[in-house]
Amino acid sequence: MKLGEISEKSFIEGVLAKYLAGKPALSHLEFPDDASDFIPLAPRTVVSVDASSIASVKLPWRSMGDAAWSIASGAVSDHVAKASRPAYAFVSMGLAPDMSVEEAESILEGLNQAFTHYGVKWLGGDTNSSRDPWISVTIVGFTTAKKPPSRRGAREGDVIVVTGRYGAMGYAVARGFNEAARQTWVVENTRRPLVDLRVGTVIALNYKSVHASMDVSDGLGYTLLEIARSSNVGLKIRRPPLLYKEVYEVCDGKLECLYELALNGGEEYGVVMAVDKDGLKKVLEDLDSYDVEYEVVGEVSSGGGLIVEGLASTRIYRWDQFAGYVKYI
Amino acid sequence: MKLGEISEKSFIEGVLAKYLAGKPALSHLEFPDDASDFIPLAPRTVVSVDASSIASVKLPWRSMGDAAWSIASGAVSDHVAKASRPAYAFVSMGLAPDMSVEEAESILEGLNQAFTHYGVKWLGGDTNSSRDPWISVTIVGFTTAKKPPSRRGAREGDVIVVTGRYGAMGYAVARGFNEAARQTWVVENTRRPLVDLRVGTVIALNYKSVHASMDVSDGLGYTLLEIARSSNVGLKIRRPPLLYKEVYEVCDGKLECLYELALNGGEEYGVVMAVDKDGLKKVLEDLDSYDVEYEVVGEVSSGGGLIVEGLASTRIYRWDQFAGYVKYI
Repeated sequence: MKLGEISEKSFIEGVLAKYLAGKPALSHLEFPDDASDFIPLAPRTVVSVDASSIASVKLPWRSMGDAAWSIASGAVSDHVAKASRPAYAFVSMGLAPDMSVEEAESILEGLNQAFTHYGVKWLGGDTNSSRDPWISVTIVGFTTAKKPPSRRGAREGDVIVVTGRYGAMGYAVARGFNEAARQTWVVENTRRPLVDLRVGTVIALNYKSVHASMDVSDGLGYTLLEIARSSNVGLKIRRPPLLYKEVYEVCDGKLECLYELALNGGEEYGVVMAVDKDGLKKVLEDLDSYDVEYEVVGEVSSGGGLIVEGLASTRIYRWDQFAGYVKYI
Repeated sequence: MKLGEISEKSFIEGVLAKYLAGKPALSHLEFPDDASDFIPLAPRTVVSVDASSIASVKLPWRSMGDAAWSIASGAVSDHVAKASRPAYAFVSMGLAPDMSVEEAESILEGLNQAFTHYGVKWLGGDTNSSRDPWISVTIVGFTTAKKPPSRRGAREGDVIVVTGRYGAMGYAVARGFNEAARQTWVVENTRRPLVDLRVGTVIALNYKSVHASMDVSDGLGYTLLEIARSSNVGLKIRRPPLLYKEVYEVCDGKLECLYELALNGGEEYGVVMAVDKDGLKKVLEDLDSYDVEYEVVGEVSSGGGLIVEGLASTRIYRWDQFAGYVKYI
């Protein structure tokens, strides 16, 4: 059975409706009402919108459900970097009329599994027809931080802390998807990316010392450069972030190779923070107390750009929605 | 110049950025940060997401800017029916790499004109590539109403009030787009649909007496039936809503024709309310004091379905994203 053979109305009422969470406490509106109402859960509300064509996240080893999970994770990740606890999700999507109902349902399942994992209530959305299927995820979160860190606040002398583990998506970018599909460690570590919500809590607790922060969705190198550029500072990187152990084997320990795989990936969903020197000890203690994976990789310098110690030059690529993989520096 | 020839990054920074509003007072995050933060403007927050493929709202007489305006109006309309004042907009979109930069810019202009008209601040969004261009609009609004009306609260004895004016889109549906394109009154009244924000204020002021409410986006007939069905009541319609004067000429005053054009349109963005009898006087006084266009069209009855006085039977169509125009009853 294809979507075009059942109506949008029966898809929404018969399939989509069962994945939606009930309304929050003290709320009155509920799907299929065209909006949701809620009482804020913290003084400051944070909203993000993250969309993607399904094709662009559909790695050869990802099912439709895996692709949907990845899009949901990307949306959640934007909150973590901004000290926000994601709470509610709204999903609009465009599905092809010749898509099977089973395939559409596996997309809903992937989204639902991700939202459940992250403790996010899926409240509503909108269904459309599209020959080039897409998903747009709006996440509403809340933060107790008086000042959520922007990407542009890094100051000279700040220490650069990078959470998460790198190199798997970098391997896929460097060696191509065919080669990557044969590497179990790459497939396992990229099939369903995981966002660590505890990092958001640590940032909220330390918002005064986290001068800048940004999540790693388009590659670590791009994220570092973007923080440097928008903060009008430079970054000196003294050591790689945490890497999968297989990366050391693949690279035979060579620094240039380690950095290439670390910096040019995407969807790792760690967070890059520029932390005030005086607040660093407390930030690291809080990350340790939550068992968050991180590495102190360098510091903010006065000169512009990105300098990686031990390398003559650094190539950074990023994924561009219109232009594909492009050289960034 | 086509989008595929410039990068997403230069499109965002060189074109999109200039349409975005600055951050709200007391906010810290600002585009290109991946999220926006704000302090709620009223006790209750209301969020809606409304998306559309551009092709599906691109009437022959609509420019790309008109189509974008229409999608923005549809998103704003969901708030009005729920007693909410729309405040912030987030737009994700998928644009085709072979779309010209000028065409993409006219879409942004149409969105911006609509948001400016409605007093909504456009805070951020996300750009993607799509062979079948689409726009998804998330609107955050606020309401002082303790209980925003759902579509399912209509009770026997309630009076049905319909705001807005009807028949132009109904004409286009009944006679086809080629014929409609020759009628100046149809073109002028459907090119850029207008949402009346004051209706939202009246509902917020009278939330205790407005037992149910829903905006008219998929046709008035469908909206009436949907309120009846989800409230588990029937509706008796005794007179048509306000109609464009040309509808009377086209129909030669025949009741069946008047109702056909009134009930089977779409995108009129009026609101259907089921109002408590005892609160009716106050609701109508408030609508009058704002000069809102409305008509009292009938009342809620105990039997199911929709009965239109003076007609033997009623045909209701609705637009279905997967199945096209379908007969609803």
